[in-house]
Amino acid sequence: MRTGVRRRMGVEERRQQLIGVALELFSQRSPDEVSIDEIATAAGISRPLVYHYFPGKLSLYEAALKRASEDLASRFDEPHEGPLGARLLRVMGRYFDFVDEHGPGFSALLRGGPAVGSSATNALIDSVRQAAYDQILSHLGVTEASPRLELVVRSWISLAESTALIWLEGRRVPRAELEVQLVHDFAALAAVSAVHDEDMAELLRTMVKDEPADGPFAVLAGRLIALGS
Amino acid sequence: MRTGVRRRMGVEERRQQLIGVALELFSQRSPDEVSIDEIATAAGISRPLVYHYFPGKLSLYEAALKRASEDLASRFDEPHEGPLGARLLRVMGRYFDFVDEHGPGFSALLRGGPAVGSSATNALIDSVRQAAYDQILSHLGVTEASPRLELVVRSWISLAESTALIWLEGRRVPRAELEVQLVHDFAALAAVSAVHDEDMAELLRTMVKDEPADGPFAVLAGRLIALGS
Repeated sequence: MRTGVRRRMGVEERRQQLIGVALELFSQRSPDEVSIDEIATAAGISRPLVYHYFPGKLSLYEAALKRASEDLASRFDEPHEGPLGARLLRVMGRYFDFVDEHGPGFSALLRGGPAVGSSATNALIDSVRQAAYDQILSHLGVTEASPRLELVVRSWISLAESTALIWLEGRRVPRAELEVQLVHDFAALAAVSAVHDEDMAELLRTMVKDEPADGPFAVLAGRLIALGS
Repeated sequence: MRTGVRRRMGVEERRQQLIGVALELFSQRSPDEVSIDEIATAAGISRPLVYHYFPGKLSLYEAALKRASEDLASRFDEPHEGPLGARLLRVMGRYFDFVDEHGPGFSALLRGGPAVGSSATNALIDSVRQAAYDQILSHLGVTEASPRLELVVRSWISLAESTALIWLEGRRVPRAELEVQLVHDFAALAAVSAVHDEDMAELLRTMVKDEPADGPFAVLAGRLIALGS
């Protein structure tokens, strides 16, 4: 209900509102396609007033990206309960929710380019990757990763990003399939590394020992063996 | 032997020499750390003469990157002979040779950032990825990739990039191990996808049917089965 009287927002409240409006627009299109005028219109304020809160589009973009990064990192939080495969599958569901909600902005950001590649944006991307990395190690019960485990976890995180980016191009594979596939990919990359390294083999045995017979890891192992026979 | 008389280079020859000198410098350090003065000194010419051939550092960087891209893409060429795993392993050897030769520049480029993220540099990165993709499809004997095969191949290419980038950080895992591991990873990602899709399963059977018992694919399959038992 409009009363004709617009309540005046406080400074911080207005900043937060602008960030939300900007994030919405930056999520749906590449940032170089979004203008300050458009953000002002969507926020229901004048262009000069936007500049009162943010010196320019880049700083507003970085603030929006910071909010999105915190949102994404929070989706990696998962209770340390139950089989690992099922935990990772739930995280993948929330990851693809995020990717789905922010598709064009997610692509523009990770594909890089002059509009988005500032050192601040790169630091935010790295902070999200680090949050994912820390979560995975904590679920594996590892405090100090070996070089091989670090490689498996970090390269899998990059695999999850590229899988999401390719999915966004045309959504030609159902996302539920990709969520399961990425859980399987994690097990597969760990298994490949375990072929080369006894510590990784030990970790892999720990990973799968509490997996239920119908969990994603066990299902994968069974099917791989069937394929090989 | 120096004769004291410096032969005057032609325009194209001088351009090519400058590109070579610049590529050498851009390979060893991040491009924002390399100055035109330094390139001029290394080429044995004056700074204004560099500007005579290239309007600025970015255009020289792009020319150097173009040469490096063509060099890298040419390393993907591999005769269509013998088992697939061995072919891919030879390509991985040449890929890591390239990464080794151009380490800091390779990292700076693929980690993005304002110094390197122009649309021309992004197009060159994409052209190398496309060359890798086309080569893999041609070795698989596929002309039109299904969405799932496209996803496997492209996400594996990104896995190879991230594996190389992580390796460059401290070279804490021997590169020969990573070359084999990436061949195994390709088979593992294809196998995971084959679990979900009959066409991929068929392709996987074709891939492995001519593999020797001591080839990388067969060795992986045997060890995975041993791990699972």
